[in-house]
Amino acid sequence: MANTFGQVFRVTTWGESHGGGVGVVVDGCPPRLALTEGDIQPDLDRRRPGQSKIVSPRKESDTVQILSGTFGGKTLGTPISMWVRNEDARPEAYSEMARKFRPSHGDYTYQVKFGIRNWQGGGRTSARETIGRVAAGAVAKKILRQRHGVEVLAWVQQIQHLTARVDPETVKLKDVEANIVRCPDAVAAEKMIRLIERMRKAGNTVGGIVLGVARGVPAGWGEPVFDRLEADLAKAMLSLPASKGFDIGSGFDGILLTGLEHNDPFRSKRGKVYTTRNRSGGIQGGISNGQTIYFRVAFKPVATVMVEQETVDVDLKNTILKARGRHDPCVLPRAVPMVEAMTALVLVDHALRHKAQCE
Amino acid sequence: MANTFGQVFRVTTWGESHGGGVGVVVDGCPPRLALTEGDIQPDLDRRRPGQSKIVSPRKESDTVQILSGTFGGKTLGTPISMWVRNEDARPEAYSEMARKFRPSHGDYTYQVKFGIRNWQGGGRTSARETIGRVAAGAVAKKILRQRHGVEVLAWVQQIQHLTARVDPETVKLKDVEANIVRCPDAVAAEKMIRLIERMRKAGNTVGGIVLGVARGVPAGWGEPVFDRLEADLAKAMLSLPASKGFDIGSGFDGILLTGLEHNDPFRSKRGKVYTTRNRSGGIQGGISNGQTIYFRVAFKPVATVMVEQETVDVDLKNTILKARGRHDPCVLPRAVPMVEAMTALVLVDHALRHKAQCE
Amino acid sequence: MANTFGQVFRVTTWGESHGGGVGVVVDGCPPRLALTEGDIQPDLDRRRPGQSKIVSPRKESDTVQILSGTFGGKTLGTPISMWVRNEDARPEAYSEMARKFRPSHGDYTYQVKFGIRNWQGGGRTSARETIGRVAAGAVAKKILRQRHGVEVLAWVQQIQHLTARVDPETVKLKDVEANIVRCPDAVAAEKMIRLIERMRKAGNTVGGIVLGVARGVPAGWGEPVFDRLEADLAKAMLSLPASKGFDIGSGFDGILLTGLEHNDPFRSKRGKVYTTRNRSGGIQGGISNGQTIYFRVAFKPVATVMVEQETVDVDLKNTILKARGRHDPCVLPRAVPMVEAMTALVLVDHALRHKAQCE
Amino acid sequence: MANTFGQVFRVTTWGESHGGGVGVVVDGCPPRLALTEGDIQPDLDRRRPGQSKIVSPRKESDTVQILSGTFGGKTLGTPISMWVRNEDARPEAYSEMARKFRPSHGDYTYQVKFGIRNWQGGGRTSARETIGRVAAGAVAKKILRQRHGVEVLAWVQQIQHLTARVDPETVKLKDVEANIVRCPDAVAAEKMIRLIERMRKAGNTVGGIVLGVARGVPAGWGEPVFDRLEADLAKAMLSLPASKGFDIGSGFDGILLTGLEHNDPFRSKRGKVYTTRNRSGGIQGGISNGQTIYFRVAFKPVATVMVEQETVDVDLKNTILKARGRHDPCVLPRAVPMVEAMTALVLVDHALRHKAQCE
Repeated sequence: MANTFGQVFRVTTWGESHGGGVGVVVDGCPPRLALTEGDIQPDLDRRRPGQSKIVSPRKESDTVQILSGTFGGKTLGTPISMWVRNEDARPEAYSEMARKFRPSHGDYTYQVKFGIRNWQGGGRTSARETIGRVAAGAVAKKILRQRHGVEVLAWVQQIQHLTARVDPETVKLKDVEANIVRCPDAVAAEKMIRLIERMRKAGNTVGGIVLGVARGVPAGWGEPVFDRLEADLAKAMLSLPASKGFDIGSGFDGILLTGLEHNDPFRSKRGKVYTTRNRSGGIQGGISNGQTIYFRVAFKPVATVMVEQETVDVDLKNTILKARGRHDPCVLPRAVPMVEAMTALVLVDHALRHKAQCE
Repeated sequence: MANTFGQVFRVTTWGESHGGGVGVVVDGCPPRLALTEGDIQPDLDRRRPGQSKIVSPRKESDTVQILSGTFGGKTLGTPISMWVRNEDARPEAYSEMARKFRPSHGDYTYQVKFGIRNWQGGGRTSARETIGRVAAGAVAKKILRQRHGVEVLAWVQQIQHLTARVDPETVKLKDVEANIVRCPDAVAAEKMIRLIERMRKAGNTVGGIVLGVARGVPAGWGEPVFDRLEADLAKAMLSLPASKGFDIGSGFDGILLTGLEHNDPFRSKRGKVYTTRNRSGGIQGGISNGQTIYFRVAFKPVATVMVEQETVDVDLKNTILKARGRHDPCVLPRAVPMVEAMTALVLVDHALRHKAQCE
Repeated sequence: MANTFGQVFRVTTWGESHGGGVGVVVDGCPPRLALTEGDIQPDLDRRRPGQSKIVSPRKESDTVQILSGTFGGKTLGTPISMWVRNEDARPEAYSEMARKFRPSHGDYTYQVKFGIRNWQGGGRTSARETIGRVAAGAVAKKILRQRHGVEVLAWVQQIQHLTARVDPETVKLKDVEANIVRCPDAVAAEKMIRLIERMRKAGNTVGGIVLGVARGVPAGWGEPVFDRLEADLAKAMLSLPASKGFDIGSGFDGILLTGLEHNDPFRSKRGKVYTTRNRSGGIQGGISNGQTIYFRVAFKPVATVMVEQETVDVDLKNTILKARGRHDPCVLPRAVPMVEAMTALVLVDHALRHKAQCE
Repeated sequence: MANTFGQVFRVTTWGESHGGGVGVVVDGCPPRLALTEGDIQPDLDRRRPGQSKIVSPRKESDTVQILSGTFGGKTLGTPISMWVRNEDARPEAYSEMARKFRPSHGDYTYQVKFGIRNWQGGGRTSARETIGRVAAGAVAKKILRQRHGVEVLAWVQQIQHLTARVDPETVKLKDVEANIVRCPDAVAAEKMIRLIERMRKAGNTVGGIVLGVARGVPAGWGEPVFDRLEADLAKAMLSLPASKGFDIGSGFDGILLTGLEHNDPFRSKRGKVYTTRNRSGGIQGGISNGQTIYFRVAFKPVATVMVEQETVDVDLKNTILKARGRHDPCVLPRAVPMVEAMTALVLVDHALRHKAQCE
């Protein structure tokens, strides 16, 4: 099940960076949902390389095609198969990787695990794999929006030491999309873009934090004990390439508070329960409590740098590698739709699981 | 599958704080492993309340009994059922919870989700549920130690603002167990204990960070793309009660470095590949690379505080609650064996999955 | 997942014939269902050995205890753990089996697979394992009856060459329970009992067919393509000890008809669709069509016969075995509640899955 | 998981009769297996319509393309995505089906379950879906052959009342492929072909029995208690379109024997254990015992007949339907590769699961 995510709304991705293409099969989608490629493509365009000067220059149109699971523009309830052809394949740019393991990539570990690897463009470890996730996530987002009134949104919250000020309760998609770094704080965004450009020129890379929110999630989603909502979100986020950390609500910062300071008092107003603050991040006991869900995802600086690095070759000899593939100085602007997609996949799955057992 | 963890080595826990008991069924355990209650009890004793002055005073012997799956002291390959009776049941201490939702607990969300809840001692949300995990984890740790030479260890790294200095490569179980707070830095431990005692007297609580390591994991464990080793670790940790964050290797701090600074160069020495630093935390591309795996888990301060708090009752009326259950000023000393257990469960499952496909 | 059945309503059984006991954990049960041991025990009593002169004389009260998952007599939505102690343990009766493989039992294959086995009373291969299934099935039957108006029933349709005449649309539980062989055709039942008694006296055994029905299943349950309703029923039935075959509707006999003869014409009457015959057995395209579901399960004669048989010992030497355990001349009367239980488990799981995706 | 089969070697099929195509994703395939389209196409050619005068005349080349999961002609251990385009789409031939439910098809049940259906050519219920299974099965058969020395074979054993005489221990693929009905008994085959031709001319259809065998399976495969090898085979077979029954070894006929007659005595010869007969069908206690596995699958006569039938339309009005799609007088010759494929999928999955836990 390594390449499948979800229990009831199940997503299976396939494909390598170079080869026939990449794709996804979505099983368990509710029937009669209006769905065409037009619902999918916008998120793929947000994920796509070459969309701005601060991301990977790989030239791909990433045009999605729905092969099954819909009829007359509506979902059938049968598996939805979607795929994107690989276009900008340049295996020759990677010929050196056939013999040398790139530091902090998956080259070495794939070789040891499988005894074989597709060294062209990183093969299965390439961020191209996330095309399938983003396509499936677009379906999930539509279900959440149309059937549950839930909005999922993510943005770049921090690049290296540059932090944005954003109100998770009110920020909108158009604020996120207002600039190429996908940070809704225009001042911070400006600085972030300049930092990333400096890194690009230096052949170096930089990481940061994406913040994800889900607004409008009703109380009751989440399945204790192992499939707590935050546990599945954590898994979803740590399954993204280059992610190194996840926290929810007060997260790592919350440990500086005492219990009394940290607790979220309940209050009731006209029969509606809410909390007067939200250190829980919208989840208590593994189950959503009706407040906004918010969490942070740390992404390391991309491992491909355009300078010489020490490494080892396939004969286990020490050597020097200078990467010649595309240089992606900062993955975060493109990670934003990935975080949204994974969030949506977790939420839809839990919405359906909740319905199965409890409604 | 909400109460089941793992794909091949599968663990299902059951039980509420008050009721017949708590337990676990372990399915998929390799046969012919020597196993008796004596292998399980020590970790349960580390998890048990009442073990020291700084943890919950609930009086439970937590004596485990193996009901099936072994014969002549060896595992049969059939399900191992283990259970612990509940002894110190004091439902009367919780009678107020029958009507009032404790802030930042799961009371409210369980009630909304299921339309019913066992309000005695927190029911299923009680940390007693982790007895089953720790028991299963003890089996997993034994498999890792005996069949793979892998050692799993955790300790308290930080309480509120107090941080320990510990070498993850060399610290030993006896260092962790040298004091009641389970922090191998004696100086920091002393301060932590004093801080927790202050909190106990004030009826307040405090959180912190547990650090987990796995040493000796061979390169090759982990299943891209969704079941990356760090993704399953993240899920495992965020499924623990009171946990709010997870990061691996450089984690959230790594975002301040550039890619060049962050990458772990490979080096080869007498045919053995290693990295000259370990910002990856022992995992690359979702697969172990042979270096030590290390990660942090943030635990919030326990929600039960012995002072009055605003909340809402089952009629959705605003009210005041003063908890009268047991006061656990800091969950971290007891969280240490939980983190070890979940780590071991993830690793054994991945060891078996790797064997199935790749060996 | 070898010891777990179901996707959403999940049942995990554990336990050996001799040892601490046998039990089951039910995960995914809807909350707020009234449930006590009184709902479970009657089916366990129908399954229990020693209930009549024609079944195994093992003396077991098989008294079930619910350890978790209920509160105030209602289900919580958390795992329901149920168990039965082993009482009539007579390992000495099986001492010869420690060294000799009983023909057509699982002794040899367990030994080869696991390199170890509990030879006392068959260990995990004992029909005692089905206690967990029957207990879980009683929960499932109650859900079906109360929440869906579905009735599940099974009976002995054939013993060796003796076949009953029963109308699947009208036969009732009290007709099945009217005699000790659980055949609602009183004349056939009489002959069957005499045949089984003859077998018992001869130390021999006899097999036959159990027929199962589910009445009132609404159209729409079942999940193509792999989890067709009949596919899951087939798996459920073939997972029962001693079962050798399954067919649904016209089954093996239907192959003598042409398509024109075999098809079930649809007819509509006051807005309600039905078929004018039911060769489909209530399932079309893997999905229930609203007609009565009926199927047959073939059970071989029990392998334990009280006469000398050729076999092989653990040193792979040819030898002679004369069984000395309890003699169960015919498993079919006790297989009836097992078939009902497995049918109910399949149906509840599909009811919840249908709700999750399609309602 | 409705469209996914297997636990460790996992197969997900997608696609409708009319639409972009049909395909499959194989997850969990061992790495470094030589694999090209040339390994897959032959079995697809055996499954394909239009291959002879006695099967459906639909014109499809069914040319498979591998889109991912291989590199340099070898499997990578990553998901293998394979697909086949739909070519001979004639939706107009099915326009009547848009409004009328074909008797004993899935039209009605799909409509009720999903509230929508692709009525062109049966949509997801079309036998075209099995293309994905047969493609995946070809991979599984290669693994079994190359890595385990296991041979899987199936043939037509019976058409209506015409039964073949075949020795399951010695029959070969070339014997099966010697005639268009895939019956290795040349005399019976001749009669079967004539019968099917008569049916075709009459616009009628006929069913029968496919017999499947697996030779060379080592003792030890199979996972009690729910995932017994015969239980998973039963599910696999009953998940095939038009199948109505399954039995293994002595099966339904075995109920006429007594236990003493039915048991398979063990014998040892030069350290090798075998049974002197094989009524168990190669499986005991849910686990393979080293003897040949054999089982029967009953297929009903195809539901599409070229004569007028009573039915109901989408407005639930009684009406008359005369099918105009392709007439497939007998599905059995094409079912043979389907049975082989599903058998191989079950066996590979169990081989890998056995390795994970017990080796």
